[in-house]
Amino acid sequence: MTATATEVSVITAEELLKHWQGHRGLTRKVIEAFPENQLFTFSVGGMRPFSELAWEFIGMAVPVVDGVATGKWVEFDKAKKPATKEELLSLWDQQTTQLNEKFSKIPPHRFSETDKAFGQWEGSGIKTIQYAIDNEIHHRGQGYVYLRALGIEPPHFWER
Amino acid sequence: MTATATEVSVITAEELLKHWQGHRGLTRKVIEAFPENQLFTFSVGGMRPFSELAWEFIGMAVPVVDGVATGKWVEFDKAKKPATKEELLSLWDQQTTQLNEKFSKIPPHRFSETDKAFGQWEGSGIKTIQYAIDNEIHHRGQGYVYLRALGIEPPHFWER
Repeated sequence: MTATATEVSVITAEELLKHWQGHRGLTRKVIEAFPENQLFTFSVGGMRPFSELAWEFIGMAVPVVDGVATGKWVEFDKAKKPATKEELLSLWDQQTTQLNEKFSKIPPHRFSETDKAFGQWEGSGIKTIQYAIDNEIHHRGQGYVYLRALGIEPPHFWER
Repeated sequence: MTATATEVSVITAEELLKHWQGHRGLTRKVIEAFPENQLFTFSVGGMRPFSELAWEFIGMAVPVVDGVATGKWVEFDKAKKPATKEELLSLWDQQTTQLNEKFSKIPPHRFSETDKAFGQWEGSGIKTIQYAIDNEIHHRGQGYVYLRALGIEPPHFWER
């Protein structure tokens, strides 16, 4: 049994989408927790402010799912870069809806198929999606430090 | 096709273990990047030093896999808490070996079975394992801020 146990499916596409959207909901709360000004200006150790990190997440989420689904890797429209917290949250919510629609239409074989994301990063579709999720968790953790340094209590990590 | 596409397996047990060990390898590099003293003392915004965060990861990794595998939730031995970077890395490496051995022996049905981790957190085995991985990514991201604040270049996020 132990030989085949490693081949057991532990996460389905639907479960992964739900997991990702749970994390995205938490990231939305972190965006909301920043005062407008600090969202766009504050950082620690010369790093990027949280608005820039959130913009990076936006540049990955839907474009990655589109790329995995279709094999076409199109960068997010830089002209849409938000200048206010309200615009950022609005764009975030648009992506939440789009992700639900687009993710379920990824052809099953594309999760395991190797591709070159945005012409640069080679890996299977699932690896590229996992990278986008992990990158969001990683940088959002940095946002927690910014909030703490500002004396603001971040949302609980387990609230998704 | 779109109706069933959501039920497709995207990650197997073996792939998840490899993914986790990749992350653990990166966390090991972050531990190594801290000067001995700062590892145990430095933080930003009143948060815990990185040694405490690494100790939290150690308290979750093998105990979580043991719990998912057996249904017995035993907290990590507090008497083993490392006092030096060398001890911390040594314990880390022991867990790397143990995880490889123990993870592959998780009975397949335990990934989807609901249990109460450490008598407190209810969820399926896979959810508890994902929580341990995500928690490590989250707090390690905070370690990146500590390193930057110390003027130290952290390892690349994609190096696993």
